[in-house]
Amino acid sequence: MDLATIIGLVGGTVLLLVSIIAGGSALIFFNVPSVLIVFGGTLAATFIKFTMADVIGSMNVAMKAFLVKLEAPENIITEMVEFTRIAKKEGLIALEKEKPSDPFSVKALRYLSDGYDEGLIADMLNKDIRLMSQRHTTGQNVFKGMGDSAPAFGMVGTLIGLVQMLTSMSDPSSIGPSMAVALLTTLYGAVIANLIALPIADKLALRSEQERMNKSIIVEAAIAINRGVSPMVLEESLKIFLTPKERQKAITATAGAE
Amino acid sequence: MDLATIIGLVGGTVLLLVSIIAGGSALIFFNVPSVLIVFGGTLAATFIKFTMADVIGSMNVAMKAFLVKLEAPENIITEMVEFTRIAKKEGLIALEKEKPSDPFSVKALRYLSDGYDEGLIADMLNKDIRLMSQRHTTGQNVFKGMGDSAPAFGMVGTLIGLVQMLTSMSDPSSIGPSMAVALLTTLYGAVIANLIALPIADKLALRSEQERMNKSIIVEAAIAINRGVSPMVLEESLKIFLTPKERQKAITATAGAE
Amino acid sequence: MDLATIIGLVGGTVLLLVSIIAGGSALIFFNVPSVLIVFGGTLAATFIKFTMADVIGSMNVAMKAFLVKLEAPENIITEMVEFTRIAKKEGLIALEKEKPSDPFSVKALRYLSDGYDEGLIADMLNKDIRLMSQRHTTGQNVFKGMGDSAPAFGMVGTLIGLVQMLTSMSDPSSIGPSMAVALLTTLYGAVIANLIALPIADKLALRSEQERMNKSIIVEAAIAINRGVSPMVLEESLKIFLTPKERQKAITATAGAE
Amino acid sequence: MDLATIIGLVGGTVLLLVSIIAGGSALIFFNVPSVLIVFGGTLAATFIKFTMADVIGSMNVAMKAFLVKLEAPENIITEMVEFTRIAKKEGLIALEKEKPSDPFSVKALRYLSDGYDEGLIADMLNKDIRLMSQRHTTGQNVFKGMGDSAPAFGMVGTLIGLVQMLTSMSDPSSIGPSMAVALLTTLYGAVIANLIALPIADKLALRSEQERMNKSIIVEAAIAINRGVSPMVLEESLKIFLTPKERQKAITATAGAE
Amino acid sequence: MDLATIIGLVGGTVLLLVSIIAGGSALIFFNVPSVLIVFGGTLAATFIKFTMADVIGSMNVAMKAFLVKLEAPENIITEMVEFTRIAKKEGLIALEKEKPSDPFSVKALRYLSDGYDEGLIADMLNKDIRLMSQRHTTGQNVFKGMGDSAPAFGMVGTLIGLVQMLTSMSDPSSIGPSMAVALLTTLYGAVIANLIALPIADKLALRSEQERMNKSIIVEAAIAINRGVSPMVLEESLKIFLTPKERQKAITATAGAE
Repeated sequence: MDLATIIGLVGGTVLLLVSIIAGGSALIFFNVPSVLIVFGGTLAATFIKFTMADVIGSMNVAMKAFLVKLEAPENIITEMVEFTRIAKKEGLIALEKEKPSDPFSVKALRYLSDGYDEGLIADMLNKDIRLMSQRHTTGQNVFKGMGDSAPAFGMVGTLIGLVQMLTSMSDPSSIGPSMAVALLTTLYGAVIANLIALPIADKLALRSEQERMNKSIIVEAAIAINRGVSPMVLEESLKIFLTPKERQKAITATAGAE
Repeated sequence: MDLATIIGLVGGTVLLLVSIIAGGSALIFFNVPSVLIVFGGTLAATFIKFTMADVIGSMNVAMKAFLVKLEAPENIITEMVEFTRIAKKEGLIALEKEKPSDPFSVKALRYLSDGYDEGLIADMLNKDIRLMSQRHTTGQNVFKGMGDSAPAFGMVGTLIGLVQMLTSMSDPSSIGPSMAVALLTTLYGAVIANLIALPIADKLALRSEQERMNKSIIVEAAIAINRGVSPMVLEESLKIFLTPKERQKAITATAGAE
Repeated sequence: MDLATIIGLVGGTVLLLVSIIAGGSALIFFNVPSVLIVFGGTLAATFIKFTMADVIGSMNVAMKAFLVKLEAPENIITEMVEFTRIAKKEGLIALEKEKPSDPFSVKALRYLSDGYDEGLIADMLNKDIRLMSQRHTTGQNVFKGMGDSAPAFGMVGTLIGLVQMLTSMSDPSSIGPSMAVALLTTLYGAVIANLIALPIADKLALRSEQERMNKSIIVEAAIAINRGVSPMVLEESLKIFLTPKERQKAITATAGAE
Repeated sequence: MDLATIIGLVGGTVLLLVSIIAGGSALIFFNVPSVLIVFGGTLAATFIKFTMADVIGSMNVAMKAFLVKLEAPENIITEMVEFTRIAKKEGLIALEKEKPSDPFSVKALRYLSDGYDEGLIADMLNKDIRLMSQRHTTGQNVFKGMGDSAPAFGMVGTLIGLVQMLTSMSDPSSIGPSMAVALLTTLYGAVIANLIALPIADKLALRSEQERMNKSIIVEAAIAINRGVSPMVLEESLKIFLTPKERQKAITATAGAE
Repeated sequence: MDLATIIGLVGGTVLLLVSIIAGGSALIFFNVPSVLIVFGGTLAATFIKFTMADVIGSMNVAMKAFLVKLEAPENIITEMVEFTRIAKKEGLIALEKEKPSDPFSVKALRYLSDGYDEGLIADMLNKDIRLMSQRHTTGQNVFKGMGDSAPAFGMVGTLIGLVQMLTSMSDPSSIGPSMAVALLTTLYGAVIANLIALPIADKLALRSEQERMNKSIIVEAAIAINRGVSPMVLEESLKIFLTPKERQKAITATAGAE
């Protein structure tokens, strides 16, 4: 699972709990009707905004994003350069026997060994990337939509609480606690949006971008293999995708391997 | 009708009603002048923003979106692959007798059987998609416009109520209830915007996007049929439009059929 | 004049007046200094943002938008199909004698009868559309700018009122009325922005879009006439611009005419 | 200097001063520490956001925008049509002796008389326009950045004031005036942003757009001159850049000249 | 280090400290739990939004941006014009021995001396620029994300404080100080966002833009060298990248050198 996400989620939650408990009575911060309004309202709005499949799908996407680690781009480059060597030596047909880890590489190799022409390979792989991005965007949008709805229903809950409090202000000593309860929904909404929904939406976007880059490397390599580019030129060209730091690492690794 | 939308709308409404009733006097939450200001003001602004036809049209679009189910992309692909087989065996002219479910497919087949050239077919079908998207966007914008206006008129109503309350504060015991009434419009505005108008606008956008994808599949298939692409290659190419899950389902279905 | 706009403006105003009068003392809602701050401040900001010509021009654009009705796209299509028939029978030169209602059509026909080549016709007409859109955008921006400034100066007025009230709180009974007056500017700002300025900006954008579509139809028709496309093919191609409903109407009309 | 900007700035300031003085004690609205927090904080944030050269440059750009009047597009068109006549009669080399008012025209004429080919002329002039737009955008961004920071530091100042007031509430009679002072920074921030910084940013954007249009006219004319387009055709083509009103004026002027 | 950034950060901090100390008891503005909630919550959200590597990387990018000065574009132009002269006289191969200061220039020269063709050089250098921009964007996004989270957790802290205060309002004299403490988190959030995080994000964006322009100059020069463009034409073409002021400076420098 993604370490930074755990640290953030656990750390942020602990922090809030500590600051609540340190202030004394922690129980006042838990109120069932308030939880229902904010969580329920946010879920309701999310169901109207999306389809059932999207909502469930986004949870799966989020789970997968936190549990499945993405291949490092260095490794993909190394793998693709290796395939170039094989194609150069034994012909494109030899790629048929290779078993790359990534299903997208599998598809690229199959197109190559099947002898599809360059335009078709690029077209089909790029369309695959574009449509994957669209699907990922839906996942992000579900979380972003929750992040928009949660504070809104927090405010709705607070308004309901305030109206109830204001209409029955006979006992002045009850004003404080009533208002405290009314504010709880705003607090819940702010925490759900800013500690959970919006950050997860951002993480999914980032991950989708990394996956897109990994796949772009594979497309570029597949086209180069088809054109018969030399492994060295391909490696040079693909390394541009890496950060200066990753390039350094990759060079060291290559040097060590030789 | 779209199930998730019902669950969301009904669930969200029930939730708010329960939390209002649980708090005691539910009647204080219903106030005719407040309803008039928020609903009336929002409607007034919407009429200024759009044309009468747009406002009525958007209601129709929304109704249709909730009542008419979109064809699943798997089915469209199956249908189009079938048409490719027919065109291969019996020529483009044979497509004339086919009766696809979708009016857009009907149009595509007619262009094919009429022998229009590829550029013209792509041009006319794509323009149709683009103009449909523009019309759908108007529908979404009407709801989005309502979602922007409702909280604004909620605030206008609250300000009117506050000014009235503040100018006649002779009886301190009436301040609470007066302010409660003043806050009602803000509450109405927030609920209309966040439970109804904005989520529906999002759902319409999502649905328009799905309809656009369905039509893109048809356009791509029509071009391929015209070029005489083989059914198998076309199927491979169209399946990229499906999610990995839908692809799995489609493969199982095909395997079962064979 | 545009009916929906009248309904919206009159209806919204009546609604607010009724809810104010129903609350008793309507006079407290009218305060000259508050009016001056919000209207004056908004005008001042608008003058800084735009040129004098833009501000006056935007009022003209708005007036024209509400008073001059746009030609229905069906009619433009009918007219252009008619011109295609004439050009087919009597040659492009015969278009010289035609007197279309729209000045843009006049220009298109002149280019055709003068024998300009297709590229030049498309270039000049499209540039005309693009520059018209830019001019219209300025008109919308003036109203949008007012819609941004009005709430800001409403807040400025309220802050000035609050500061004055807070520094001289000797008489507690005057706090309420003073604060009511302070809130008036916020109310004015919200009404100007949300009932007048922003909705009008949206209506102008919508109308500009419709005008752009009308002109796009003319450009497409002009190019087709120059290429000698048959009236029937042109009609088919132009009808894609219509909504399904308008198409139905156009078909009925044609059927009735035949 | 730009008249509308003066009217706006002076009018808006006078308006605010009048409404402050009319309310009695105007001195309470001037508070040195509040001025320091809002102005100083805004300046500090602006320095972090931009480079020193950008901040100073943006002031120069703003000054120049208010003091130097842009050439009217009609005049540029008249001038360019005249150059076309000269080039037609005496050849491109004759343009060398012409002294257009605009430095951008000077450059265009030089490229023409130096015999650069069309692609190069268009490339270099368009790149010049694009980079000028980028520089202007920085100027606008400085003012927009100030407009974002001013209300933020207004809020920071108010929070500081509130915290100080709330910790020492021994004397209830001092609460009002203390809070009035705390609100001053919010007032300053709102006025700086909405009367000065944001409107000026908008005016700079508008002016940059006009300058870009003027230069686009020159580029189009330069290309036409190089191609040997006739003065009349060029005039027709350039007049599309004008508003209908300006066109009318230009036609009248031409008619008067003939 | 970047002077404007230091002035802004130090100046802004001093300003706030002075206005706090001038108000008397400065200690009340420092509260450990409040600091924890805002800083901790912001960090937690940032960790969820990004990867650990991104967060650390963004700090490095920021550090580098403030410590390493960018080459002035004039100098890069001078250097590239010099390389053009060398290439003209001694051939592209002679560029191999040149040692430009910028690693990007080194790469460009290597491609030139290795005899890569123009398309490949442009492709690889432009891809490098695009991917560098993407990496820089991540750095900016980390700071922008912090700037979004800080005020949100400021509000969360204030809500927690208010709820705690409202539930235990037995002693009226403690209300003021409790509320002061509750407001501290909002103050911290506003300062972190508006004095630190958002301005730094803007500065990084600006710097990335300048670096992109520097590299664009190198790409354009490399292509021109490969095409054998004369040094004088190249200089003319590259100077368009400079502001009028920088051009003046460059001309003076050249004149002095001759």
